[in-house]
Amino acid sequence: MSTVGLVGLGSMGFGMAQSLLRAGHSVHGFDLNPDAVARFQAEGGGAGDLEAVAPGLDALVLVVVNADQMEAVLFGPDMIAEELKPGALVVGCATVPPESARVFEDWLGDHGLLYLDAPISGGAAKAAQGELTMMASGKPAAMQAAEPLLEALASTVFRLGDAAGPASAMKMVNQLLAGVHIAAAAEAMTFGISQGIEPKTCLEVISQCAGSSWMFQNRGPHIVEGDYQPRSAVEIFVKDLGIVSDVARDARFAAPLAATALQQFLAAAGMGHGREDDAAVAKVYARNAGLKLPGDE
Amino acid sequence: MSTVGLVGLGSMGFGMAQSLLRAGHSVHGFDLNPDAVARFQAEGGGAGDLEAVAPGLDALVLVVVNADQMEAVLFGPDMIAEELKPGALVVGCATVPPESARVFEDWLGDHGLLYLDAPISGGAAKAAQGELTMMASGKPAAMQAAEPLLEALASTVFRLGDAAGPASAMKMVNQLLAGVHIAAAAEAMTFGISQGIEPKTCLEVISQCAGSSWMFQNRGPHIVEGDYQPRSAVEIFVKDLGIVSDVARDARFAAPLAATALQQFLAAAGMGHGREDDAAVAKVYARNAGLKLPGDE
Repeated sequence: MSTVGLVGLGSMGFGMAQSLLRAGHSVHGFDLNPDAVARFQAEGGGAGDLEAVAPGLDALVLVVVNADQMEAVLFGPDMIAEELKPGALVVGCATVPPESARVFEDWLGDHGLLYLDAPISGGAAKAAQGELTMMASGKPAAMQAAEPLLEALASTVFRLGDAAGPASAMKMVNQLLAGVHIAAAAEAMTFGISQGIEPKTCLEVISQCAGSSWMFQNRGPHIVEGDYQPRSAVEIFVKDLGIVSDVARDARFAAPLAATALQQFLAAAGMGHGREDDAAVAKVYARNAGLKLPGDE
Repeated sequence: MSTVGLVGLGSMGFGMAQSLLRAGHSVHGFDLNPDAVARFQAEGGGAGDLEAVAPGLDALVLVVVNADQMEAVLFGPDMIAEELKPGALVVGCATVPPESARVFEDWLGDHGLLYLDAPISGGAAKAAQGELTMMASGKPAAMQAAEPLLEALASTVFRLGDAAGPASAMKMVNQLLAGVHIAAAAEAMTFGISQGIEPKTCLEVISQCAGSSWMFQNRGPHIVEGDYQPRSAVEIFVKDLGIVSDVARDARFAAPLAATALQQFLAAAGMGHGREDDAAVAKVYARNAGLKLPGDE
């Protein structure tokens, strides 16, 4: 059993820290929000100052928002990369451009550290159950060191190569599809409303037809119930489709559906719905067409 | 058991005619292509001149391409609507604008005929097995008269209202999603190629992730295998997303994803791939990004 630090006790990270604890690891949780840290301590987790704790860690799992936050943790003022012991493992779970993953692998390698490129998929409930889907790529030593952690965190691990990069690339492809499909679900259900189809009927029928998607079946009920409590927020897709757009532009790859979906999430955020559930992208369509959604006055 | 005429012995209509025969109905098949008619006769079906056969039919099932073809059959030079016997049933299976379905119901009603708005989903194999999904709406008398036919043709029937229109509206919503999802699958798999991900790996991983869709899982293998033999052609989505765009414009409904997907199918058709499988929309992305697809030299 390892001594593990986990940075980012948000909806995904908190459940992952719980899953690591449950598997018997000694886990220290870190977050800018002291309430999250206190809740984790109440579950039996450790806490403290990361700079002080780092030398005793076998592994540091980063469940932060983006590459900038990963860089700030590892190479910011506290230079945690210099505090970790030689051969320690860093696991990067944020959605980042593949090139960033390769840079982290290089930089951490220069400090004698292992890096696993390991983005996650599955949502908060699966994180807490230790049943995430993880896409992993990294040097064989990093993959081997990570095995006990992956076992605690994920029910499915795709091993995508022996260097950082491919796992983040695959995550981007998934986010491209996920983002387009959420916006498409919103476009379809509101188009249905414009044609007199109740969202509930639309959900029921389409779920059994060739037009269905994982996201249609998962987010559709949020629109039907008018429930925009965030399971995953609009801002997450502003971020992730932003990464897709940046990487696609660098590769001179024209991605018109991803670009269009991004505009719809941007409009949702611009309307003030950025922290609502991503199904709130339906509000952009409804406003543009003068339609009422379930739950509207 | 009824005497049924079926117009349009294409990939869907031929299987539907077989399913009606198998259920014990007396079926006459009609098509502009004499080979299709001869094949149907070899299966035990009837044929002949529609104008001569029409007075003896209990029901006429139209599995043609669009509303114009439906109008040409019913109200063209042969005026079949005047040859059918009073109270006979017309079943419209083409994807048409809801307004067209309402107009057919009115016009046929003026001739003392029943009309069922009954678009289909499921593909040629399910058509031949009598296991289509059908969306049906129409007057109670039309729905009742159609029951034995629906039973022979479909494993799932959604009964969507007591007038023509809602069934065609739901079909449009399904086609909006299906078209966007096919183009998104092509966009995602080619974006993956640009990032060094093999299409085969992409298909395997995404199929188990939140980015999956019915279409991704169904059309993805065509791209992976470089197999563009048409199960459903690019031109079908040029047509169906065209209907979506027309109806959305009339409703002042902005449908940016459907509009974008339509442009990609148009580009595929413009490149000369209109009669290939709709997965050939991937060739637009590959050409635009200078990428090779499986099967390319």
